[in-house]
Amino acid sequence: MGNSEIVEQLSHLFDPRTIAVIGASNTKMKWGYIVPANILAGGYKGKFYPVNPHDEEILDHKVFKSVKDIPGEVDLAVVTVPAPAVIPVVKECVEKGVKSCIVISGGFSETGEEGTALEKEITKLLDGSGMRLVGPNTMGVYSARSSLHALMPPVRPVAGKIGFAAQSGNLGTQMLSLGKALGVGFSRFVCIGNEAELNCADYVEYFAEDPDTEVILLYIEGLREGRRFIEVALETSPKKPIVVLKAGKTEAGARAALSHSAALAADETIFDGVLRQAGMIEADTTEEMLDIAKAFAAVPHPKGKRVGVLTWGGGWGVVTADALAKYGLELVELPEDTRKQLDSILPPYWSRGNPVDLVGTLDLSKHFSCIEILARCPVVDAVITLGTMGATSSFQSFVLEGPLPGELNGDLGGGIKPRVIAGEFLKQLQAVDEAYREKVIDLMAETDKPIIAVSFPTSGAITPMLASQSEVVIYPSPERGAKTLAALYEYREFLDRKHALAR
Amino acid sequence: MGNSEIVEQLSHLFDPRTIAVIGASNTKMKWGYIVPANILAGGYKGKFYPVNPHDEEILDHKVFKSVKDIPGEVDLAVVTVPAPAVIPVVKECVEKGVKSCIVISGGFSETGEEGTALEKEITKLLDGSGMRLVGPNTMGVYSARSSLHALMPPVRPVAGKIGFAAQSGNLGTQMLSLGKALGVGFSRFVCIGNEAELNCADYVEYFAEDPDTEVILLYIEGLREGRRFIEVALETSPKKPIVVLKAGKTEAGARAALSHSAALAADETIFDGVLRQAGMIEADTTEEMLDIAKAFAAVPHPKGKRVGVLTWGGGWGVVTADALAKYGLELVELPEDTRKQLDSILPPYWSRGNPVDLVGTLDLSKHFSCIEILARCPVVDAVITLGTMGATSSFQSFVLEGPLPGELNGDLGGGIKPRVIAGEFLKQLQAVDEAYREKVIDLMAETDKPIIAVSFPTSGAITPMLASQSEVVIYPSPERGAKTLAALYEYREFLDRKHALAR
Repeated sequence: MGNSEIVEQLSHLFDPRTIAVIGASNTKMKWGYIVPANILAGGYKGKFYPVNPHDEEILDHKVFKSVKDIPGEVDLAVVTVPAPAVIPVVKECVEKGVKSCIVISGGFSETGEEGTALEKEITKLLDGSGMRLVGPNTMGVYSARSSLHALMPPVRPVAGKIGFAAQSGNLGTQMLSLGKALGVGFSRFVCIGNEAELNCADYVEYFAEDPDTEVILLYIEGLREGRRFIEVALETSPKKPIVVLKAGKTEAGARAALSHSAALAADETIFDGVLRQAGMIEADTTEEMLDIAKAFAAVPHPKGKRVGVLTWGGGWGVVTADALAKYGLELVELPEDTRKQLDSILPPYWSRGNPVDLVGTLDLSKHFSCIEILARCPVVDAVITLGTMGATSSFQSFVLEGPLPGELNGDLGGGIKPRVIAGEFLKQLQAVDEAYREKVIDLMAETDKPIIAVSFPTSGAITPMLASQSEVVIYPSPERGAKTLAALYEYREFLDRKHALAR
Repeated sequence: MGNSEIVEQLSHLFDPRTIAVIGASNTKMKWGYIVPANILAGGYKGKFYPVNPHDEEILDHKVFKSVKDIPGEVDLAVVTVPAPAVIPVVKECVEKGVKSCIVISGGFSETGEEGTALEKEITKLLDGSGMRLVGPNTMGVYSARSSLHALMPPVRPVAGKIGFAAQSGNLGTQMLSLGKALGVGFSRFVCIGNEAELNCADYVEYFAEDPDTEVILLYIEGLREGRRFIEVALETSPKKPIVVLKAGKTEAGARAALSHSAALAADETIFDGVLRQAGMIEADTTEEMLDIAKAFAAVPHPKGKRVGVLTWGGGWGVVTADALAKYGLELVELPEDTRKQLDSILPPYWSRGNPVDLVGTLDLSKHFSCIEILARCPVVDAVITLGTMGATSSFQSFVLEGPLPGELNGDLGGGIKPRVIAGEFLKQLQAVDEAYREKVIDLMAETDKPIIAVSFPTSGAITPMLASQSEVVIYPSPERGAKTLAALYEYREFLDRKHALAR
C-alpha cells in the first residue's frame, strides 16, 4: 500500500466530516450514549448522525434507522452494538460506502474461538471494500485537529505533536489523561484493539506521513504482521522518533498479553534486534513512555553526550552524576574559560567543577546566568538544571508548612511567623517559573541544545504552571531526567549512523 | 561504645529538654533567626535559650551572652555562628557540659585545607568530653517525639516510623517534604554533614535501639569508618530493615561527592558486597528511597515470592506481569478452588488466570471480594491491586475534564452533560477510597500478607486522602509497586537465611 493512500484513507478516520454512531442510545449508562456524548461534548464540528431502529432523537440529533438512510457520504461509522449484531452493521457500512469504521464492541477474538470466528467474518467483509476498520474491542480514537473524542472514557487530552497507538485501551486513555496533567500533548490517538483490519504497522505508516505528528508513541503487546511492522519502522524511524513500550517481554507478561488482547507475542529476540536496528527508542516503564515522548516533542536532540549540570544542592548533583554515567552520558569537564565566566557569578568558594553547585545562591537571576553559560559552552551538548525550575513551588510548600496564625500559642512567642520569613524568599521567587520558561525556550532556540529541568516535587506534584505546558520539560527526579536525555541522545546516534552510511 | 550508651547520649540530641541556639539573631534573613524560628514554630515544648553577645531578646526569649551563663543543664546547643567563631563556641559548650551540639555553620572540610584544619580542631576539642556533635555543615535534626525542627528549611515532616540519616541536607530535607505529600512518616532525621564527630555508623547504631524507629533510611555518599559501619549494619539489619541509596557509585558520581561533602568514597566493590551480606536494601533511585521505606513502615513482608494481581485493564496486567518477572517475583498460577471463588464474582468471560482481569467491572464491592479471595488464597504471598484504589480520583479527573456548563454551546446540544454521566459512576465510587483503606488494613492484619495498590495518577498526583496517610501503600505505576514488593521480599529472604544459619 502506498503511503499517500493510507494518509488519504485514515484522514476519514481521524478527521471525518461526517460521523454515524450505530447503536446510539438514550440510556445514559450505555456506551451508545457515552461515546456520542463524548464526541459532541468534545467539540466535534462535523455532521453527526445517531443510528438505531427505535428512537426519534438522541442527544438533540435526528436518529436514522440504518446507516444506509443517512443522506450523503459517511466518513466514519462508530459501532457500539453487541458483538453478534456487528456483522450485519459492518455489511451495511460497506454497502453504504462508509470510508472508515471504529468497532467499539467487544466479544471477538479476545473471548475465544466463537469470537475469533466472528472477527474473521469482519475481516472477510472488508476485503476489497476500501473501508478501513479500527478494532473490534477498541476504546476508540482521538484527533486534536478535529477535536474528535470518539472514546469510551470522557478524557480530554491536550493537543500536541505525539501520535499514539496503544494495544490497551485502559493504559492508552489513562496515558492521555496523565499527559494532560504533565504537559504531554497528542496529535492523534488510537486504541488498536483486535486488529481485524488496521494494525499497528498501518498506524505507524500513517503517523509517519501525518503532518500533525512529530513523535510516534507505541504501546505494543504483540504484532500480527511482524515483517511489515519492521519494514515500516525502518522507513519511519529516520524521519520521526518512535518511542515504544513493548509489554509481554517476559514469559509471564507474554502469557498475560495472550489472554488480554489475543495478540501474537512477537519473538522477543527478533523484536529487540529490530528495535535497535530501526532506531526505535524503548521505554522501560510506563512512566518513561511520557517522560521520553514529551522530551522528543519539546526539546532539540543533543549533538553529543557531554552534559553540563547545574545544582542547588550537592547531593542532587552526586545523584545526577551517577545517573548520567549509568545511562552512558558524560559529565563533561568544563574549560577554564567557562569556569572563569562562572567565577564572575558564583561565590568564591564554589566547587569550580561540573556539576556546578550553586551553593545555596537564592538570587535566581544568577541561576539563569549559569544556565546560559553552560548552554553556550562549546563542549556542552546538553544541560540538566536541578531545582531552579519549580523553586517557587518548593518554597511555597515550605511556606504552607508553617503554622497557621491561629495555631501560634502564646508560649511559642507571638513574633514567630515562618510564613513571613519564607515570604521574603517568595518575593524573589514569585515570577521565576514563568521567567525560567521563557529563558529556556529562547536558549534552546539559540543554542539548539536540550535543557532538561528537574524539580523535586515537594508538594507531590510538579508545579502546575510548568507541568501543564509542553514547551519545556521538567522531571520529578534527576534519574528520570538523565534517562530521558539518554533516550534523546540514542536517537541522535541512530541518525548519525544513518547519515554516515548514506554518505 | 555500648548500644545503650549511644541511645542515652543521642536522646539529648533528638529529645532535648533544653536548647541553646548560639548565634541567635533578630535579622530575619539569617539562619540565626530562621533555625530558632523553625524550632519554636515547630512546636518544641522544652526550654529555649538564644545566645548572642548583643541582643536583649530574640523571638520573645531572653538572650544570654554566653552558653555558660545559661542556668542549669543544656541538652542541645545549635550553633549558627560563622566558621572561625565555631571553635571558641564549641569550647564553651564543652566547658559548660552541654550534652549534644549541632553545628549548622559551613566553611569546614567541604571548602578545602583551611576548613579541614578547623574541623580537626573541633574533633580534638570533643575528645573525651562526652559531648556528641552533628556536623559541621549540617542542615540539622528533626525528631517527631519532641516535635523538634532544628532545621534550616521550614519543613514540617509527618510523624512516622522511619529514622533517616542523610549525607546531603538538600536531598534529605526535600525527602522529608515530599514524604509529607506521599504519606511517608519519619521518627527522626539527621543531616549528617561533615562528620567531625558523630558519623553514619553512630546514627544507625542509635536507630537500631530507638523504640520510635522501625525502618532505617540512609543516603550515603561515603563512609569515614567503613569497617565500623559494616559491623553496625550487620548487627542492625536482622532487627530493622535498612534502606540505602548509595550515591557516588560511578566514577563521575564519586568525584562529585568528593567535591560536595568531602566524604571518602567507599570502595564500591566492598560496599556492594557488604550491602548484600548485611541484608541492606538498596534503593536504585531517589524515588525508590521513599517507595521502599514507606512499604517497610506500612505493610507485612511477603513470606514468599508468589504474587496475585488484580487489574481493571488488561494492558496494566501485562505490564505488571513483566515487572514482577523482571524483579524476580512469581505471577502464581491460581488453584482451581480460587478460580471457582472468583467465578462467583466475575462475569463468565473473565480470563480465569492471573492477573485477574476485572474486565471493566464497575461495582467496587466486587473488587473488594476479589482482593479478599486473592489475599486468602494459600499459594498467594502478596497482592498487587491495580486501579481500584484511587479509582475515585481517576473518575473525578474524567468528570472534571467534561465541559463546564457555560462552555456548552447550543450547537453541541444542551442535553450533553458528561459531568452528569460520570456523576452516576461517581456515586458508586464516592466512598471507595476510604472503604478500600479500611478493608486493606483489616485484610493485611488478618492474612499477614502485603497488599500493594497502584493507582494511575490521572491528575498528576495520587489521591490526596490516600497519599497523605501511611497505613496502606499506593504507587503511581505497576513497575514501582513491583519493585517495592521485590525489596520487601529481598529482606524477608535475608531474614530467612539468617534464621536457617541460626538453627
